[in-house]
Amino acid sequence: MMTHAVDQHSAEDSAPSVRLPLRPELANEKPYGAPQLDVPVLLNVNENPYPPGDEVVATIAEEVARAARGMNRYPDRDATVLRQDLADYLAVETGVDLEHLDVWAANGSNEVMLHVLQAFGGPGRTALSFAPTYSMYPEYARDTHTAWVVGRRQENFTLDPVYAAETIREVRPSVVLLASPNNPTGTALPTATVEAVCEAALTVDLDGAHPVVVVDEAYAEFRRPGTPSAVALLARYPNLAVTRTMSKAFAAAGARLGYLVASGDFVDALRIVRLPYHLSAITQAAAGAALRHRESLMAQVATLRAERDACVAWLREQRFPSGLPFDVADTDANFVLFGRFSDRHAVWQGLLDRGVLIRETGPEGWLRVSIGTSAEMAAFRAALTEVLREQGEEQP
Amino acid sequence: MMTHAVDQHSAEDSAPSVRLPLRPELANEKPYGAPQLDVPVLLNVNENPYPPGDEVVATIAEEVARAARGMNRYPDRDATVLRQDLADYLAVETGVDLEHLDVWAANGSNEVMLHVLQAFGGPGRTALSFAPTYSMYPEYARDTHTAWVVGRRQENFTLDPVYAAETIREVRPSVVLLASPNNPTGTALPTATVEAVCEAALTVDLDGAHPVVVVDEAYAEFRRPGTPSAVALLARYPNLAVTRTMSKAFAAAGARLGYLVASGDFVDALRIVRLPYHLSAITQAAAGAALRHRESLMAQVATLRAERDACVAWLREQRFPSGLPFDVADTDANFVLFGRFSDRHAVWQGLLDRGVLIRETGPEGWLRVSIGTSAEMAAFRAALTEVLREQGEEQP
Repeated sequence: MMTHAVDQHSAEDSAPSVRLPLRPELANEKPYGAPQLDVPVLLNVNENPYPPGDEVVATIAEEVARAARGMNRYPDRDATVLRQDLADYLAVETGVDLEHLDVWAANGSNEVMLHVLQAFGGPGRTALSFAPTYSMYPEYARDTHTAWVVGRRQENFTLDPVYAAETIREVRPSVVLLASPNNPTGTALPTATVEAVCEAALTVDLDGAHPVVVVDEAYAEFRRPGTPSAVALLARYPNLAVTRTMSKAFAAAGARLGYLVASGDFVDALRIVRLPYHLSAITQAAAGAALRHRESLMAQVATLRAERDACVAWLREQRFPSGLPFDVADTDANFVLFGRFSDRHAVWQGLLDRGVLIRETGPEGWLRVSIGTSAEMAAFRAALTEVLREQGEEQP
Repeated sequence: MMTHAVDQHSAEDSAPSVRLPLRPELANEKPYGAPQLDVPVLLNVNENPYPPGDEVVATIAEEVARAARGMNRYPDRDATVLRQDLADYLAVETGVDLEHLDVWAANGSNEVMLHVLQAFGGPGRTALSFAPTYSMYPEYARDTHTAWVVGRRQENFTLDPVYAAETIREVRPSVVLLASPNNPTGTALPTATVEAVCEAALTVDLDGAHPVVVVDEAYAEFRRPGTPSAVALLARYPNLAVTRTMSKAFAAAGARLGYLVASGDFVDALRIVRLPYHLSAITQAAAGAALRHRESLMAQVATLRAERDACVAWLREQRFPSGLPFDVADTDANFVLFGRFSDRHAVWQGLLDRGVLIRETGPEGWLRVSIGTSAEMAAFRAALTEVLREQGEEQP
């Protein structure tokens, strides 16, 4: 007869204490995510402030109902129709001819990145990025047992192409992650920098293979005129992939649809590690429905870009009590990083006390505000003016 | 100036050949999944043959439209409402009192299992199951770099509790996976076997922790009267979890909603490794809508159980030309494993030629048929009778 703690309890007792074999590297971790607070003005997670209009909602309901009628069957594992819709959209957005075999789709860019690191990262391999950058990247690496190395961006958050190339040759990563526009700084990479990174990757020999380069363009639709997309480089670099999402420009954060465009070989590698039927028939239908309304949704993106540029201009007019101006990062995204405050938490809290939730993220002293509606941005400006007056905040 | 293959191409050329750093263990792998063929009678992937009725579709469309109106925002990361709905359903189905903190939900049981192996498996650890069993299990292990060990079930596909306990003490896995009813055999585990496995796990010391035991009850709603659910054991074993899915009983394979019930500590471990916002607002809404129709959906399950028992009885009446009966496995699922054929592929192909797609799976010589509508089962019986007559199939 085996003896252990359980024997001391009857089935009616509360469950006995048994330690679960949680991996040691997860032991003190918390589930990732910004606080989800109930506040009037939500400018903290770079959501699109415009709820889908009635026409968009109606198309989604119609397409989802159609999918639900066959919901007893498994979905198309390859999501061929949706991938073609995404290819068609991206071809218009970037001017690059694409087909469904060049496109991969999953439940958010999150899952796309997981697939990338499952296929090309893993134990004994390294992923490289350049900080400050998106705070989920180290989590993708952790979840796939990929070593994580970060180089540095310059003071103005740009990436020096010579330094980037040197770092790649030194670190010999199997995956390079570049966010452009970068989160949380808003910085877009010039074509020459992405080229330099791809070229450097091709000089690194990993048992006959070369590192892959993933440019995360989650915020690409918000880029200013003249800012390039790395999609234009795909034909030249089969080890390059570009990720996008419907969360931001398509106002569909709740639908969780991220995608990637790359060579067919790159996409085929992701198909091996994806869980079968990872993308539900409902998600495929809802995303396809939203794509049909791209023109009206892109008009809202233009409004948000203008609102963003106005926010940058307003922040650049502000002065600390010392008379010195704010630092405001150039941004091609739907958010602005600004600072630097001697006590950024106090400024964040002061805004929250006035019903405006922004994000305490980025390097010490900086804060990030997402671009909302005109009314929300007015509330942000009014609250920030009050907070700074009240706190007599000094530049550090 | 760096030189390599790319320099020899202009941007207009087709992409140059560059080898991608695909992990070596994936190099010869194919994406998982049964052939998706366009055939009149689909009895191959254990789908529910009944499409959701008009009322179910209407509720889904309504709830998804409601979710779509707020789709610009990220979904509830913790899916609290859906998890409570699932807890309420399972409490009625099993008679065990449950709350949302005991429940985890993800995009199919697939993703639930991935979370389990990310939290408790991984490099340097082992997952154990007993074959023949579900063919995805080794893929979950592969995708998380968990070593994979399989013990054996007995000739009749049951699991010997003494052997299982010995194997657990010998292998010292961090995760034990038990399917009940088992796929592809249909075999349910008696309570005493699950108890023996949980007790054995508690005798294995992994640096002060104990292995977790996951009972995969994807097909539980199809179990015969008197067949137990492992949910009843949860209060006694905090290292036990039970997974379920809406794919089968709820006729929602296309919606991709799997879930797990366990102690709050177990669920909290999964929350650390889940990707943030892994479950879309659309999925949460669609699954909640289907749960509201559980009574009518469970009535269909009863019809399928009766159809399944009739199929088993019919198969047991059949004779090979030698006069010997078929082997037909006892089944508590919505499928039947039967055989054994000297050339099962020929029988499978003969059925397919007659428009009936079943699955060539399980031990050599066996075939698996999913339970469809009465008309589909009649087509299966007619086709099988013809195939056997034509082929003069002998028992091996």
